[in-house]
Amino acid sequence: MSEAENGAPVTAAILVIGDEILSGRTKDKNIGYIAEYLTAIGVDLREVRVVPDEEAEIVAALNALRHRYSYVFTTGGIGPTHDDITADSVAKAFGVPIDYDPRAVALLRQRFKGSDLNEARMRMTRVPQGADLVTNKVSLAPGFWIGNVIVMAGVPTIMQAMLDEVGPKLKTGKQMLSESVRADAREGDIGSELGELARAHPDATFGSYPFFDDRTGPNTNIVIRSRDPDKLAAATGAVHDMLREVKARLKVS
Amino acid sequence: MSEAENGAPVTAAILVIGDEILSGRTKDKNIGYIAEYLTAIGVDLREVRVVPDEEAEIVAALNALRHRYSYVFTTGGIGPTHDDITADSVAKAFGVPIDYDPRAVALLRQRFKGSDLNEARMRMTRVPQGADLVTNKVSLAPGFWIGNVIVMAGVPTIMQAMLDEVGPKLKTGKQMLSESVRADAREGDIGSELGELARAHPDATFGSYPFFDDRTGPNTNIVIRSRDPDKLAAATGAVHDMLREVKARLKVS
Repeated sequence: MSEAENGAPVTAAILVIGDEILSGRTKDKNIGYIAEYLTAIGVDLREVRVVPDEEAEIVAALNALRHRYSYVFTTGGIGPTHDDITADSVAKAFGVPIDYDPRAVALLRQRFKGSDLNEARMRMTRVPQGADLVTNKVSLAPGFWIGNVIVMAGVPTIMQAMLDEVGPKLKTGKQMLSESVRADAREGDIGSELGELARAHPDATFGSYPFFDDRTGPNTNIVIRSRDPDKLAAATGAVHDMLREVKARLKVS
Repeated sequence: MSEAENGAPVTAAILVIGDEILSGRTKDKNIGYIAEYLTAIGVDLREVRVVPDEEAEIVAALNALRHRYSYVFTTGGIGPTHDDITADSVAKAFGVPIDYDPRAVALLRQRFKGSDLNEARMRMTRVPQGADLVTNKVSLAPGFWIGNVIVMAGVPTIMQAMLDEVGPKLKTGKQMLSESVRADAREGDIGSELGELARAHPDATFGSYPFFDDRTGPNTNIVIRSRDPDKLAAATGAVHDMLREVKARLKVS
């Protein structure tokens, strides 16, 4: 992984393609996985969209996203059936031709001999001109990388293997660092104070995650984030100070 | 639920608001739930977006979606902390004022007496002018419904209770019917044939969902969908015929 040369944040979007996600039949497991993966390597996920298997929708979303973020990761729609139209839609978005890719055909030939490599399976070898293949250790059918768009499978195990393949080649920003503090207070008791801390520490962010502790009741995790370790430490110290003050006050009242 | 009067499909989008989803810290559980819920009542979920806790992003996404679909359901960003800016952003998108809503204040007063209803908790009573409250059986803090936008909590149990509240009031389209057929064939062996069926049955859709059966290996579920029961039956019959032919052919070869 190479850090972006000018130190600018490296950003990303995910485009999930598939009627089955929108109908609720399949529950997406890729967004959370990719989000965590990108955060860990210092790429800021800024937006996610889910669109149906319709060319116009895919093209419009892809063009909106690819001009706006450093990378776009797509999942879904690269299988062997008629509703798998991602590759053709990506080619259309980039305005480049698409055809059966000899490298992809050679990959599938490793498993499918003679007429077993039928018209349906040949769909999976359609790759836009100028794209690099994204091979993976789970499935022979490849994804691909064109411009700043990385096209991956929808099946989570295959998508994850493809992400492992492209991850080391991504440019990455300065990694976001974080600290987590268990508040032992209700979110509503510390909300104003957290807002003040956010204003006082503009280089850090303060996330507030309420949860219910079965033993002690409503509680909150505070997650402090910064790219600068000193600023993170200062902001985290300020959170601990704030929590002491709030608890002292709640005890008195 | 009242069916849309002109028989036109009723459409929807989901707008998930929250840095915690984009960082991967919190895994979204609402998209799949709402998708399934809407499909069951005959509302077509057409698009999902996830955006950060930033006013400009929320306003832009909301305005893009609310003019395009019958309904927009938002989740997240209506809690008591400084990064909960959904209500104010929705007011801005609609160009209406926002203030502490006496109905919402009265709800929170049921639990929080005196200074316990502090500045942070009062944030949860901010509701855009003209909105109806969406109360729920899990939390006192309400969501709201303005125009065609329904603003709900991000915590799944609360979101689900709010959806139960608004569901019966939604206009709904003709319900999508579906049949599921286990192919006992690999997706790549039936892909071309499914494509032909899709062309021959334009009023039905044919989804193909590969899965791995631990006993028998790669397999596929085919899901046939139509709003017309007769067309669904015809399309499902055609799938069974196709599967018989494919299996006979594979046996011979």
